[in-house]
Amino acid sequence: MLSNNAEPKLILFGDSTLRDGEQAPGVQFTPDAKVEIARGLAELGVDMIEAGFPVSSEQNFNTCRRIAREVGNHMTHREHIGQPAMICALCRTIESDILRTFEAIRDAPRCQLRLFIATSDIHLQHKLRISRDECIRRVREGVRLARTLTPEVVFGAEDGGRTDPDFLCEVFGAAIDEGANLVVITDTVGSCIPAEFHQMVKHCIERTPNSEKARWGVHTHNDLGLGVANTLAGIEAGATVVDVTLTGIGERAGNAALEEVAMCLTTHAAHYHAIHHLNTPLLTRVCRMVSAQSGMALAANKPVVGRNVFRHTSGIHQDGMLKNRMTYEYLNPADVGATSDALILSAQSGRTALMSRLNMLGYTSISRENFKCLFAKFKNLAETKPEVDDADLVKLMSD
Amino acid sequence: MLSNNAEPKLILFGDSTLRDGEQAPGVQFTPDAKVEIARGLAELGVDMIEAGFPVSSEQNFNTCRRIAREVGNHMTHREHIGQPAMICALCRTIESDILRTFEAIRDAPRCQLRLFIATSDIHLQHKLRISRDECIRRVREGVRLARTLTPEVVFGAEDGGRTDPDFLCEVFGAAIDEGANLVVITDTVGSCIPAEFHQMVKHCIERTPNSEKARWGVHTHNDLGLGVANTLAGIEAGATVVDVTLTGIGERAGNAALEEVAMCLTTHAAHYHAIHHLNTPLLTRVCRMVSAQSGMALAANKPVVGRNVFRHTSGIHQDGMLKNRMTYEYLNPADVGATSDALILSAQSGRTALMSRLNMLGYTSISRENFKCLFAKFKNLAETKPEVDDADLVKLMSD
Repeated sequence: MLSNNAEPKLILFGDSTLRDGEQAPGVQFTPDAKVEIARGLAELGVDMIEAGFPVSSEQNFNTCRRIAREVGNHMTHREHIGQPAMICALCRTIESDILRTFEAIRDAPRCQLRLFIATSDIHLQHKLRISRDECIRRVREGVRLARTLTPEVVFGAEDGGRTDPDFLCEVFGAAIDEGANLVVITDTVGSCIPAEFHQMVKHCIERTPNSEKARWGVHTHNDLGLGVANTLAGIEAGATVVDVTLTGIGERAGNAALEEVAMCLTTHAAHYHAIHHLNTPLLTRVCRMVSAQSGMALAANKPVVGRNVFRHTSGIHQDGMLKNRMTYEYLNPADVGATSDALILSAQSGRTALMSRLNMLGYTSISRENFKCLFAKFKNLAETKPEVDDADLVKLMSD
Repeated sequence: MLSNNAEPKLILFGDSTLRDGEQAPGVQFTPDAKVEIARGLAELGVDMIEAGFPVSSEQNFNTCRRIAREVGNHMTHREHIGQPAMICALCRTIESDILRTFEAIRDAPRCQLRLFIATSDIHLQHKLRISRDECIRRVREGVRLARTLTPEVVFGAEDGGRTDPDFLCEVFGAAIDEGANLVVITDTVGSCIPAEFHQMVKHCIERTPNSEKARWGVHTHNDLGLGVANTLAGIEAGATVVDVTLTGIGERAGNAALEEVAMCLTTHAAHYHAIHHLNTPLLTRVCRMVSAQSGMALAANKPVVGRNVFRHTSGIHQDGMLKNRMTYEYLNPADVGATSDALILSAQSGRTALMSRLNMLGYTSISRENFKCLFAKFKNLAETKPEVDDADLVKLMSD
């Protein structure tokens, strides 16, 4: 743990919206959409943009190449960072995959190869059907080859969350030994809980040979609703790179959402003793763009960027909000680029909210007796519909 | 902390879908919908069903009364619990509110009054405009009155997450002293992170006078994406009651989702050393009912119950799933009442998945050469649409 006198640590954001996000059932970005999202990510201040998985299809390859060329130099809103985002692509530890993947991204001034292989016994035995020794051999050969192409080589242990921790240290040690400068612990199936994941990350950082020669990253999934919490647990355990997606899209229940991790770190900077490069006021815009381009509708209560997160209907909450916004809002809408909505009048609303809205509409001299009667009528009407709007109020007043 | 030799602790589930859930902007349940949801909650094995906030409207009052009468005795699927669910209602610490709220639920064989008052300085100064002493006086008077009506009295500290911990202990001590048998720490604005919330709960349990005379509960919100993690942190710190909502609906970004907390405890029972009463195979059914009745669409990647959580499109994942389901699925679909969907063919799909689907369609003798050509055509087609279906494959084969 860093003491509070030390410099805050810089947390680097890697984004996998265009790769793990696209693996979500039902999501298929057009090449143009991917370029637009990559540009949004660059402007947002993301440090590493995973552009795709080039060997999966010709189009994926070509789109990664476009992103490397068109976004690899993008500096808009990046003055405070001073360099463009790294353009990354995922590949297996197979020689032909590595060579082809590098072709897809080499035109970016800063390009990164992200190698992965599964390390859990379940995956080694049932999927890859190879031994642990063979796994380590493939990691070494893959990383060694990748390092001849670019100095930026990542190694990620797929299904790390279910891997024997000591074997995981061996694998990471081999990758770092061959020159990987970032190693990533991946909870591929989203099975971890924060206490366990913290322990796993801590164990790896403490026990891996040459651990200090690489940055440590975490990649978590949300199957148990713990994607963000596990990513934060990884940071508490020493990770300094988070691998996330916009709006949390990804395989199955998705990934840790970039915007949620960003706002946790921003609002609790003292606890995490961390800083980051993100321009958080762009979050709402880029998340809504991803939702539109992916066709994945955001839940109304999606944290940080859902349409309900700065809206209030219940009487007690509206009364509090009218007195002081801080009573019921922790995040500041401006910090995430949201416009703060008006209070919504519904069956749960109380007198303060109704009076406030009537005043806004110009009804300023209502007698106590009339207001009592009006409030009863309002409640009757509100029980018949989710929201009472201004037109309803004008009608009520004219009755 | 319990040692692992001790009996596992029973975690009681309280559900607030019909109260905090209904406070979500855009949600308004009809009385019939509320009764149906309450019945679903009872069948699911929920221990405490918060039926509403009776003083908020005449209809809310009447619906609470219907639930008390119609669901208060409901024993379907509750044989293993041996008693019906407690029917609860929320009220302020005001005398008239308490009396009226009790009228709404008294017809249930087991009824519980849930009193609350805000305890943070922000709320005391800006919303209630009362002193800390006045706050404690109201808690004492409210709980004392409530206890004359029913032995089941809950006290919840609104905005507990931002309350001075020592004052919180004083307030809880007063409530327990007056006879509250459950006290709830509430992160009303969703501002807490797990490490902090754990500390807060631990502090309260350790420092509150008569702490051992009541159960301790937690009620968390999801503004930072940490609702479930904070609830689990509360359990790790000693809480034995969780106050959650189905699908996580609630104010702003919503509450900790019942189904996520349930599956965390179920899959990690050893870590939490906990058991619960829920029939988890009913989760998918009741969550989809709540989504339909609330009009709040579930995100495709909603953990546990979203439509994508047991679907796979990418080639490597499909290959793994065909070899062994455990490679990429941690939850068992049957445990949450989901039917497992087929693998989806898309641009990310690989040879194994395509061949498997072709075999299922009856194409069993495809030459190596033909398959190579077919796979290329399949990839071209897949790049033009999110999902390649069986009709597409039949057409490809006939070409």
